Amino acid sequence: MPDYNVGILGATGAVGQKFIRLLQDHPWFTIKALGASQRSAGKPYKDAANWIENSVMPDSVSGLTVRDCKSADFADVDFVFSGLDSSVATEIEADFANAGIPVISNAKNYRTDPTVPLLIPEVNPDHIELIHQQKFTSDGSGWIVTNPNCVVVPLVTTLKPLQDAFGIESVILTSMQAISGAGYPGVPSLDIMGNVIPLIGGEEPKIHEEPLKLLGTLKGDKIEHANFPVQATATRVPVINGHMLSVTVGLKQRADAKEAERVMREWKSPIANLNLPTAPPRPIQIHDDERYPQPRLHADSENGMQTAVGRMRNANVLDITYVAMAHNTVRGAAGGAILNAELLVKKGFIK
Amino acid sequence: MPDYNVGILGATGAVGQKFIRLLQDHPWFTIKALGASQRSAGKPYKDAANWIENSVMPDSVSGLTVRDCKSADFADVDFVFSGLDSSVATEIEADFANAGIPVISNAKNYRTDPTVPLLIPEVNPDHIELIHQQKFTSDGSGWIVTNPNCVVVPLVTTLKPLQDAFGIESVILTSMQAISGAGYPGVPSLDIMGNVIPLIGGEEPKIHEEPLKLLGTLKGDKIEHANFPVQATATRVPVINGHMLSVTVGLKQRADAKEAERVMREWKSPIANLNLPTAPPRPIQIHDDERYPQPRLHADSENGMQTAVGRMRNANVLDITYVAMAHNTVRGAAGGAILNAELLVKKGFIK
Amino acid sequence: MPDYNVGILGATGAVGQKFIRLLQDHPWFTIKALGASQRSAGKPYKDAANWIENSVMPDSVSGLTVRDCKSADFADVDFVFSGLDSSVATEIEADFANAGIPVISNAKNYRTDPTVPLLIPEVNPDHIELIHQQKFTSDGSGWIVTNPNCVVVPLVTTLKPLQDAFGIESVILTSMQAISGAGYPGVPSLDIMGNVIPLIGGEEPKIHEEPLKLLGTLKGDKIEHANFPVQATATRVPVINGHMLSVTVGLKQRADAKEAERVMREWKSPIANLNLPTAPPRPIQIHDDERYPQPRLHADSENGMQTAVGRMRNANVLDITYVAMAHNTVRGAAGGAILNAELLVKKGFIK
Amino acid sequence: MPDYNVGILGATGAVGQKFIRLLQDHPWFTIKALGASQRSAGKPYKDAANWIENSVMPDSVSGLTVRDCKSADFADVDFVFSGLDSSVATEIEADFANAGIPVISNAKNYRTDPTVPLLIPEVNPDHIELIHQQKFTSDGSGWIVTNPNCVVVPLVTTLKPLQDAFGIESVILTSMQAISGAGYPGVPSLDIMGNVIPLIGGEEPKIHEEPLKLLGTLKGDKIEHANFPVQATATRVPVINGHMLSVTVGLKQRADAKEAERVMREWKSPIANLNLPTAPPRPIQIHDDERYPQPRLHADSENGMQTAVGRMRNANVLDITYVAMAHNTVRGAAGGAILNAELLVKKGFIK
Repeated sequence: MPDYNVGILGATGAVGQKFIRLLQDHPWFTIKALGASQRSAGKPYKDAANWIENSVMPDSVSGLTVRDCKSADFADVDFVFSGLDSSVATEIEADFANAGIPVISNAKNYRTDPTVPLLIPEVNPDHIELIHQQKFTSDGSGWIVTNPNCVVVPLVTTLKPLQDAFGIESVILTSMQAISGAGYPGVPSLDIMGNVIPLIGGEEPKIHEEPLKLLGTLKGDKIEHANFPVQATATRVPVINGHMLSVTVGLKQRADAKEAERVMREWKSPIANLNLPTAPPRPIQIHDDERYPQPRLHADSENGMQTAVGRMRNANVLDITYVAMAHNTVRGAAGGAILNAELLVKKGFIK
Repeated sequence: MPDYNVGILGATGAVGQKFIRLLQDHPWFTIKALGASQRSAGKPYKDAANWIENSVMPDSVSGLTVRDCKSADFADVDFVFSGLDSSVATEIEADFANAGIPVISNAKNYRTDPTVPLLIPEVNPDHIELIHQQKFTSDGSGWIVTNPNCVVVPLVTTLKPLQDAFGIESVILTSMQAISGAGYPGVPSLDIMGNVIPLIGGEEPKIHEEPLKLLGTLKGDKIEHANFPVQATATRVPVINGHMLSVTVGLKQRADAKEAERVMREWKSPIANLNLPTAPPRPIQIHDDERYPQPRLHADSENGMQTAVGRMRNANVLDITYVAMAHNTVRGAAGGAILNAELLVKKGFIK
Repeated sequence: MPDYNVGILGATGAVGQKFIRLLQDHPWFTIKALGASQRSAGKPYKDAANWIENSVMPDSVSGLTVRDCKSADFADVDFVFSGLDSSVATEIEADFANAGIPVISNAKNYRTDPTVPLLIPEVNPDHIELIHQQKFTSDGSGWIVTNPNCVVVPLVTTLKPLQDAFGIESVILTSMQAISGAGYPGVPSLDIMGNVIPLIGGEEPKIHEEPLKLLGTLKGDKIEHANFPVQATATRVPVINGHMLSVTVGLKQRADAKEAERVMREWKSPIANLNLPTAPPRPIQIHDDERYPQPRLHADSENGMQTAVGRMRNANVLDITYVAMAHNTVRGAAGGAILNAELLVKKGFIK
Repeated sequence: MPDYNVGILGATGAVGQKFIRLLQDHPWFTIKALGASQRSAGKPYKDAANWIENSVMPDSVSGLTVRDCKSADFADVDFVFSGLDSSVATEIEADFANAGIPVISNAKNYRTDPTVPLLIPEVNPDHIELIHQQKFTSDGSGWIVTNPNCVVVPLVTTLKPLQDAFGIESVILTSMQAISGAGYPGVPSLDIMGNVIPLIGGEEPKIHEEPLKLLGTLKGDKIEHANFPVQATATRVPVINGHMLSVTVGLKQRADAKEAERVMREWKSPIANLNLPTAPPRPIQIHDDERYPQPRLHADSENGMQTAVGRMRNANVLDITYVAMAHNTVRGAAGGAILNAELLVKKGFIK
């Protein structure tokens, strides 16, 4: 059984707390170090963090002294998860990589770097090879891997089988996103209770771009991006966890909803046989009940790692239309990063 | 000043209550008669109705004895508004029309009848002429006019200026609909609190079809329907009032978001000069703040009769994309029907 | 390890579904039979039930054919759990008890019967002996045990240590109750979203009376009820699970908040050493953080079986005041009944 | 008709915005000046404020240049309303009073000052005379009047008739308070959605103390406070506007619920004949329907100025118990202050 000591950067934030909760009983990874801003550094974690998870703070972390996010203070870990805010992630993550400490990051900062894998293990595990292009250390010991935006994860997970079978020509989607995606304190209750906010700042460009890298092809030492337009409208709704997407897709090779559903059902995850602890047995679940999926009922399915699909039907415009939903802070953030780490262990990138 | 006695059919239901509230101080119309099911008939309205409006039940109706929905019992009214359930509307509305009592209906039953106007006064006031094709009575005194589905109203209100200027080629939309649209008791709280339901039974076909009649052209004695595909996904969200639409439109004559916004701003309502009491001064309001419109903040604008538009921008797929929102039980139901009645008075159809 | 086949009466309702979910992996009890109304009887459970739990319906029940709630159809079970509606529970539960099938019921119907234990294992396990007074069968094989109202459970769980140490003189409480307490479809969303309803029909009398039986003393063959006034106001709030109580208590022997908190902390559950699978390790959890407990964060603590206490302080009127909270459909309903069954097995009442 | 120019201090905050909205069409008062923090000063109001009211920002203020909150900048107003944060109100309000500009404040800072009236016009209009004790200016032109905490308003409004008729012995209450009471951004949605928070920091001491001053007696130049214990538990619930109180009262002279309800119904407001524009015709409304009042249905009654009462009944502990509800940011804040100003005009304190 692999056995690694890990650090968490941004440990007091919403994503950091989710890392702690998900790693609580992890069979391979043990939380050794927690890093946060200077304001928190030096305090016991239980005093530094305003714990917002709906479970008790694990005893294993409550007494840990929070560290400054400096690589020199993390010599005792094998790698770090980063839940850092994008305002500081660029420099801190580079510091760790430069020091030979691998960074598995949920931050957006390096997602578009052509040498940094933007990784969903079930979708593009081969992109992991980009790591060899990174120059943080001469011996390759320090590197960065990122996971995508939380809307992009269920979107691309469902597009992948379609792309393989028919090719994607265009995508239009409207997202209805949960409040947990905005972190804490995040969205004021006066803004969102009984309401819909039709804008999530900075979200739509990521939805337009990240799928093209994720569905791109590794050619030699770089990714040749996929090439199709994505049009997204990102809205906020009064839901705790689980981003819902209403997706309409144009296909290169015409196909109807029945065929699309069949390829999704028959699709095989390329990591299905690796026995990664966090990998969901069924990365895609297709619901037959037209009222499903629903975020409150299904966001936690398969420990929050499953993408749920429903209402697959022929579209009057473009080809097919469906809804997709996944847990935004598990599958779309901390859980996705942990699965990335597991793949990186299995593939020998983490020693 | 016109002065009419009106009846309300389905008066105890959610739409019926909205009719009562909106007509409370109406300058032309006085509520004379309330009709409901046999279970309620004979009781004082205050005992028959489970009042759900957030205002006190008007004294003018609380003591009225509820009548059975039979035309014979409504001889003392000039016309009726119908908020009847679709399970009974076909027969009851025909009974009234046959008896020479005009019916201005919010029910869906006669919307697709080629002789029945499906009417938004700002969009297709000329369709009113279809009334002359109706055969309910030999003297033309009895007829039915309908208003569209509550999603269709803001959709078509915003499509109309685009169609006039550029022509519509295709429409894709996702609606996020308020719970009040399901009536009372309607959506169980266990289903919708902190949740999104990706299906509203029977809603999408109406959104696909009604716009084509509304944007059709009166040719002789019938409507030549418009001809473009509409693809809708109708979802329910935890909002009290106000349906939000995320709309993407393909135009026949290419135009960008700036031009689309300009034609919406410059568009003139054909009924602007008729001084109809319920007509909103600005049927379309374009919000500059990207966070707007929001149902909780803007559903009540201009007494709930305004369609709010925001986030107009160029689309990566099709041509332009925007959000639109209107009060579903006012503009999209009872208020729309009352405006229809006002137009019908002004045009001489109601004597 | 004990091994019993169990039936569930009222299996399609909200409480019935909770029984199914909680029994899914139970080490002692296997669901063998599901009973519901005649409308459902004969159908596979997956077609008869509108599944509302936020987990997938277990495969072990989805294919079971729903039975009519008649004792003759349940000959293959050792006992039944009842989640029946109170409108039918009186007769059906008697039918089962008469047939020698023990009934462990969540319905209110027999709670006030002087021969029927109203049971919280941590509070009054000795009341179980009342079973011997029941006359359903001549050999004592058929009997009924009930669990209390969902507000009464956290109330009495926190009053018990106070009563033992100081005696209770009077209790005033306001409850803020979750919507799941009303079953399904239950509370209409239009009634409760963004709202408080200051009445829950029929609730307050139970809160006034049940604590007196629970905290009563078994004297010979009957319970001598405790004797103090309880004044409750039961309100509904927009919370999914977890009833919150604001409680103020007058004590017979003066004590301050510090002493009250100490006796709650030092209180020992009388069933602590019985190793009942569903018994929470800590039946009472006292939170130091003044913002806690909160239903959304803490209702699921210790699998939903823990009563959480917070804000213990001296009162300006009466003696002490605090808040208490527990999961209403687990600790306060199905989970409580299952724990009752476990105690009854351990004590030899279920053979 | 009186005609005054007024300023608003703290104009960009939630209370300041409510002042603006409520004064929009006020017959006596015209908004002349808006004051806010230095960060906002110098900007047009429409750029300085993040408008959160669910109505369009009035044209009359959107172009006003925000001023620094210094008395020297407000020479053109007759008096000011203060919606200042308590962290700055002490000094700023004194600066205005010292400069001879009356301050009608919603801030808590001067509420306990023995020379400052804590005023609810319907309850203690005679306390206004305390103004003469204030020493801000030698000619008495500058002074401060305050309105109470938003829970205290409906509490004391309902206690007043009881005190007059029977005397109050003790009060226990639990409040369920709306999120708008916390201002903006206020309560994070992740904290309150589908939840109850059993603590509102700093709230309970105000509820314990302010009623005693309000129900006190003006004796010579000071208030002799009332003398009874109040025990409050203040909780936050997911409601937009309207604080709900569950109140139990011990009376000095025994009386039952019927008598209590009678004295509330027969109680006459001492300002009923003054024709103050903001005074509600019925300051107390007693609901017969046991399900009422509800914040979402009734907070706006009589323009948000009415206190609604329901569920009056005999209590098993103490004497009577009932629920009371009022709009926290109208009756309990800005609207209350405006009514105070109207009384002060009528009584000649504002020249």
